[in-house]
Amino acid sequence: MSDTSANNLPVCPLPLDDHPCVLLAHGGGGRLMHRLLDELILPALGAESAGAHDAAVLEATEGRLAFTTDSFVVNPLFFPGGNIGHLAVHGTVNDLAMSGAIAKQLSVGLILEEGLPLADLWRILCSMREAGAAAGIRFVTGDTKVVDRGKGDGLFVNTSGLGVIADGVDIRPGRVQPGDTVIVSGDLGRHGMAIMASRERLSFETPIRSDSADLGTAVQTLLRAGIDVHCLRDLTRGGLASALHEIAVATRVGIRIEQARLPVAETVAGACEMLGLDPLYVACEGRFVTFVPAAQSDQALDVLHGHAVAEQATRIGEVIDTPRPPVTMTSSIGARRVIDMLSGEQLPRIC
Amino acid sequence: MSDTSANNLPVCPLPLDDHPCVLLAHGGGGRLMHRLLDELILPALGAESAGAHDAAVLEATEGRLAFTTDSFVVNPLFFPGGNIGHLAVHGTVNDLAMSGAIAKQLSVGLILEEGLPLADLWRILCSMREAGAAAGIRFVTGDTKVVDRGKGDGLFVNTSGLGVIADGVDIRPGRVQPGDTVIVSGDLGRHGMAIMASRERLSFETPIRSDSADLGTAVQTLLRAGIDVHCLRDLTRGGLASALHEIAVATRVGIRIEQARLPVAETVAGACEMLGLDPLYVACEGRFVTFVPAAQSDQALDVLHGHAVAEQATRIGEVIDTPRPPVTMTSSIGARRVIDMLSGEQLPRIC
Repeated sequence: MSDTSANNLPVCPLPLDDHPCVLLAHGGGGRLMHRLLDELILPALGAESAGAHDAAVLEATEGRLAFTTDSFVVNPLFFPGGNIGHLAVHGTVNDLAMSGAIAKQLSVGLILEEGLPLADLWRILCSMREAGAAAGIRFVTGDTKVVDRGKGDGLFVNTSGLGVIADGVDIRPGRVQPGDTVIVSGDLGRHGMAIMASRERLSFETPIRSDSADLGTAVQTLLRAGIDVHCLRDLTRGGLASALHEIAVATRVGIRIEQARLPVAETVAGACEMLGLDPLYVACEGRFVTFVPAAQSDQALDVLHGHAVAEQATRIGEVIDTPRPPVTMTSSIGARRVIDMLSGEQLPRIC
Repeated sequence: MSDTSANNLPVCPLPLDDHPCVLLAHGGGGRLMHRLLDELILPALGAESAGAHDAAVLEATEGRLAFTTDSFVVNPLFFPGGNIGHLAVHGTVNDLAMSGAIAKQLSVGLILEEGLPLADLWRILCSMREAGAAAGIRFVTGDTKVVDRGKGDGLFVNTSGLGVIADGVDIRPGRVQPGDTVIVSGDLGRHGMAIMASRERLSFETPIRSDSADLGTAVQTLLRAGIDVHCLRDLTRGGLASALHEIAVATRVGIRIEQARLPVAETVAGACEMLGLDPLYVACEGRFVTFVPAAQSDQALDVLHGHAVAEQATRIGEVIDTPRPPVTMTSSIGARRVIDMLSGEQLPRIC
């Protein structure tokens, strides 16, 4: 067909009235805004027009609902392994997955800066469509605003998501208990270092690609296998260290991890060293930590190793009943170190 | 109590570590971000901490769900009659109300620009709390990002909302039919002109205040009174003209309105004239248009007149079965004029 490309995505219908870039008028509620919506945004997302209606109406579903929101301001918009569009879908789908929910519907809120090339917007929205289709979600409602040049940074994306939690699933920090095994689903720090490397124009022999990925399927397989998953957290801002710290403090338990067991790719470790960063604190966008009963940890690892996003899943430590200090790490020579939260900013605008 | 002010809002706990303004580090996932959340954002909103959890879990409810999202980029952040916080609550509550839903839960996504005074953020979030409490909604999940100075404009707010639609309620453009009476709930253009006047530093004898308001209660009273409401639209971007145009085109009917019946305050009309704007296209944030069976229009007006937000509700026209041209307006001397959509931008960044 003439209007679809090889990978089955519609071809960008540009030029839109010969405006190759976003104009302030694209946000004004008039004819240009409607054309941007009807001819670019909705086709790219593969979404239907709301039909002059403001809210999406959803049929009631069985089970509890999970509801979450995330804004994305990553800089640059395109990076090795993804772009802000992928990230905005994976981030919200993963937030839902971490409560045990299956993601169902997403909203999309776009804040465009005047001057953004419409071809970039098209590419980003097509990525959202692909990521959304792979995750099994529908884009059901959205909003587009335009800000004047110099009052934004190309594009900010908000996605809010709804998911359904099956009966019997109870995943939350409060269920973490002494004796639980701590498992991470893969290597650390890849997303943050991909962003930093592309921002600082560092080049490595093997380029660092973001780990941005949908974690929902891996989580659902764990649950279907009968693993009593106590808690899940994706390792976004603040990295593994912050996730463990938050859970330990919220639950008043201690978490002890072993440095030698932490999976970090050589290129990521090298880039971290060069920039003076600790991979423990660097964000991932396709990795999680989970707490499971020790007796089920082998089975949980077996399940995770069956998924591409978690084939390097590994046991990194355990939960103990001494809540102070909350998180400690044993080094390869046996020294124990307290893992604290960062006090400030390590990596700005990585998501 | 020492930590609440006269109007029962908590007193701002500033200074936060003696940082009076937003720093990049407030977005980094570390200690400063947690303090901003726990000591400023959550108390101001009157929301509970998510307890190291990413998604809110909601019990299943009876009835269909309505789901909507809106980003707010209004400039300036504070204006006569409101601020970006009020607006972000009312905008999303009203989008839900326009589908006949009762708003229940809201998410809050904040994009802060480095340098935003924390005292301004506090005031805005307190306004959200007040507006949310008045509308009967809870803030259940949120997200905060920080962008570097010059890459944002103080504050952008996204709110997404969930509401419940009672059985039997069916409000959508597709139900509009020839013979329906067209009612607007109040005077036009007040919000847009309040923003423009404060941006252009125009002063009038009587200052123009935004009409930003929650429309949910008025809509629910119409429904409880047994009015068969066919369609509702709030008159935001593009104003009454664009709302009518969208509905007429979507439904393939014609809409005929009478200029003499359009309620426009004298100050608003004067400001529009001064700036060369047509109040038909200027946004409101607390007004709607509704389509009801002619036989119920008197009763609908009686109900609306009982609400402060709709005490000037008035019949402005009717639906006819000639879809071309979609919308026409009869002037006071009897001339008929076609009401088209705007082709470009009339008022940038009014919401």
